[in-house]
Amino acid sequence: MSTSAGLVIPCKAAVAWEAGKPLVIEQVEVAPPQAMEVRIKIKYTSLCRTDLHFWEAKGNTQLFPRIFGHEAAGIVESVGEGVKDLDVGDHVLPVFTGECGECGHCKSEESNMCDLLRINATRGVMLADGNSRFSLKGKPINHFLGTSTFSEYTVVHSGCVVKINPLAPLDKVCILSCGISTGLGSIFNVAKPKKGSSVAVFGLGAVGLAAAEGARIAGASRIIGVDRSSKRFEEGNIYNLFINLSSTVEKNCLKKNVELTYCFILYLSSLSVLVYLSGTLTPITLLKRVQVIAEITNGGVDRSIECTGNIDNMISAFECVHDGWGVAVLVGVPNKDAVFMTKPINVLNERTLKGTFFGNYKPRSDLPSVVDMYMNKKLELEKFITHHVPFSEINTAFELMLKGQGLRCIINMEA
Amino acid sequence: MSTSAGLVIPCKAAVAWEAGKPLVIEQVEVAPPQAMEVRIKIKYTSLCRTDLHFWEAKGNTQLFPRIFGHEAAGIVESVGEGVKDLDVGDHVLPVFTGECGECGHCKSEESNMCDLLRINATRGVMLADGNSRFSLKGKPINHFLGTSTFSEYTVVHSGCVVKINPLAPLDKVCILSCGISTGLGSIFNVAKPKKGSSVAVFGLGAVGLAAAEGARIAGASRIIGVDRSSKRFEEGNIYNLFINLSSTVEKNCLKKNVELTYCFILYLSSLSVLVYLSGTLTPITLLKRVQVIAEITNGGVDRSIECTGNIDNMISAFECVHDGWGVAVLVGVPNKDAVFMTKPINVLNERTLKGTFFGNYKPRSDLPSVVDMYMNKKLELEKFITHHVPFSEINTAFELMLKGQGLRCIINMEA
Ligand SMILES: NC(=O)c1ccc[n+]([C@@H]2O[C@H](COP(=O)([O-])OP(=O)(O)OC[C@H]3O[C@@H](n4cnc5c(N)ncnc54)[C@H](O)[C@@H]3O)[C@@H](O)[C@H]2O)c1
Ligand SMILES: NC(=O)c1ccc[n+]([C@@H]2O[C@H](COP(=O)([O-])OP(=O)(O)OC[C@H]3O[C@@H](n4cnc5c(N)ncnc54)[C@H](O)[C@@H]3O)[C@@H](O)[C@H]2O)c1
Ligand SMILES: [Zn+2]
Ligand SMILES: [Zn+2]
Ligand SMILES: [Zn+2]
Ligand SMILES: [Zn+2]
Repeated sequence: MSTSAGLVIPCKAAVAWEAGKPLVIEQVEVAPPQAMEVRIKIKYTSLCRTDLHFWEAKGNTQLFPRIFGHEAAGIVESVGEGVKDLDVGDHVLPVFTGECGECGHCKSEESNMCDLLRINATRGVMLADGNSRFSLKGKPINHFLGTSTFSEYTVVHSGCVVKINPLAPLDKVCILSCGISTGLGSIFNVAKPKKGSSVAVFGLGAVGLAAAEGARIAGASRIIGVDRSSKRFEEGNIYNLFINLSSTVEKNCLKKNVELTYCFILYLSSLSVLVYLSGTLTPITLLKRVQVIAEITNGGVDRSIECTGNIDNMISAFECVHDGWGVAVLVGVPNKDAVFMTKPINVLNERTLKGTFFGNYKPRSDLPSVVDMYMNKKLELEKFITHHVPFSEINTAFELMLKGQGLRCIINMEA
Repeated sequence: MSTSAGLVIPCKAAVAWEAGKPLVIEQVEVAPPQAMEVRIKIKYTSLCRTDLHFWEAKGNTQLFPRIFGHEAAGIVESVGEGVKDLDVGDHVLPVFTGECGECGHCKSEESNMCDLLRINATRGVMLADGNSRFSLKGKPINHFLGTSTFSEYTVVHSGCVVKINPLAPLDKVCILSCGISTGLGSIFNVAKPKKGSSVAVFGLGAVGLAAAEGARIAGASRIIGVDRSSKRFEEGNIYNLFINLSSTVEKNCLKKNVELTYCFILYLSSLSVLVYLSGTLTPITLLKRVQVIAEITNGGVDRSIECTGNIDNMISAFECVHDGWGVAVLVGVPNKDAVFMTKPINVLNERTLKGTFFGNYKPRSDLPSVVDMYMNKKLELEKFITHHVPFSEINTAFELMLKGQGLRCIINMEA
């Protein structure tokens, strides 16, 4: 038992008062966890595009004031009634989707879309009583995705809290609670490329690059990155990302005599495509990206992962996989009105289309082993962390993402 | 060596002189097989919708005169140069798609879309020399799908000829060379339902009912048939088809205490649906079939198979599978201009869409074991055979199919 258990904790939180306006660090009060809930002291959090999306609130529910944040790591401060497998002092990742353990989805080997705890962006309160655990001068503040990690303390349903190896550095593994796991899982759990496969990744943000890292770990012999911004390629060089990826795999492959190419297709407009193939930048005009990919892969890639949310990319990602065995996986979150369209013959020709949500990871069952992959040096996380700021400068993280700079910015709650 | 080997064989064939006009039994000449080809004496053939489709030739290439037919069984009369694994006297099924054994598809475990021998409905000649092996008074007659089984003798590429158990009755197993295997394979090789699953089948023709038979064999606990024609349901009773299916499984299930329902949804118009659920016919108006299926299955079926080729059914088949784990398989051949459309969120919610061609069976490698399933009484074929005619009355088979009567009509080449 901690001395604060059962008491309201006053602490600092970054409150979003209005859509698109800088967050304000405020003194808030955090109520104790109720039945099946856990109160967590957040140590590190990072900013994900989904926070930005709901903070901008364009066309979305306007639930303000609100405490955003869902990528984080912390330590359990106290637990509510009925919580059995979590204790004060446990090192944990809060996750925006959970595992009740009881529903059809939790019992299915294939699904992670828990009926009770699946993502809900329009709810600003806790499930137990329909109230918020946060208040400021007596007035409630909305939760976000059941996590609200932009606060020194937060309350989360125990089904959304993952106990991890206490030796794992929280300033690194915090990024496993959303984007990076989503990208890795889309490869390991859904696309499942065989060793030697070709893999196309649409969108080279944190999620897409994590999918590329997954493809590298799975032994892909060729990874094709597609992004509309040539900055992503330059940045990859600045942060040694593409170079790191390729040098590692190139070394392994030289030994095994496997041909390996990292190929970046940067399309600048629908009429002009830049293909970067093992060291040379080749401009190709008047060719669509599906054709370019088919040409350089002898008919199509073995697997593709869509990580932009743009509908044209979803369609291209599907149509660029090889007939007979190709599998395309949709990860990016689409615009509400978007419609996926393709000629049915593209499906009949033995292509597979799948979608995933948090990379099909069941958070409580599966994330501890992803943390262990990092601890065993099978997975690199450092390359995804491009910036650091103290909690007081959290708005800098928003500015960087708005400018499209860097991948993940770690926010240190104690600095 | 047979005495006719190397010689031209004069024999009877049913020639289609014009689109949609009755076939005419003519005396034709069949040239000897060239390198890698086999000449087969056809014993039994049956009519499949694909023959009808290209015979009607609405919007399709008009390759007349032509000898149709691709569902058949026969005996090898002679083999061309280089044919190693087939001999005079072998019992065989000619198949409209083949296995060269050398290409990327043949080498892939997942695909059966052989680069060399995959279905080609617009070619009327043999691959080897671009000529026909059939002639009538010196003029060539077009082949169909490389099989042309509406002839007492035909020449087929050896990669499209499957050697089977010589004890198998050819008047039964002939129907395994197209539709029935397609339906079975879509279940066994592609949808792969687990024991106890719910399976929806759109279109209750021979292919769809074979998929239902596959689902029964795979241990599905609930099979939902969807057809626009209530005749299909009555017919199922006339031929003891649905009754056969359900009584068999009901006996098995009573023992194991599994709830089993055969449920037929007959939709009469977009506004009215008739649901037949364990013995009662319930009319439901103003409900779409996806909603009806979701309601009676608590969120959606585990697997669905589309066997009509109608685009609305393809979309419904996809959208009626359960989120988290549902798999939809497209089998029906679509109209050229059809476009598959769905909201991408239906994919992201962890549904899978697949397509298949001949049920993903590699004909030479896989069909012998399907014949053995029948020989071992694991698979019933009799219920799919609703009519018999002698070769001289082949046009009756066309009339029956045009009227939508029955499932398979066996044409006896020697009667
Ligand atoms: N399914 C899930 O569980 C899940 C989880 C986390 C994130 N996501 C989604 O994944 C997607 C990627 O997230 P992220 O954090 O990597 O985003 P990000 O903004 O960091 O990266 C997106 C990348 O895609 C590129 N891009 C955007 N639109 C493009 C277009 N039309 N054509 C080509 N390239 C384009 C951008 O240049 C950028 O490099 C988002 O849609 C996000 O909402 C899904
Ligand atoms: N993918 C392959 O390898 C392959 C192989 C063989 C056949 N096929 C295709 O499979 C399909 C079925 O073949 P079949 O021989 O069983 O045909 P069939 O004509 O015997 O049966 C089709 C059934 O679907 C029903 N139907 C048709 N349109 C419908 C609609 N709009 N809504 C509801 N029900 C409808 C009909 O009433 C009928 O019962 C065809 O499209 C055929 O071309 C595909
Ligand atoms: Zn659950
Ligand atoms: Zn996120
Ligand atoms: Zn082949
Ligand atoms: Zn057929």
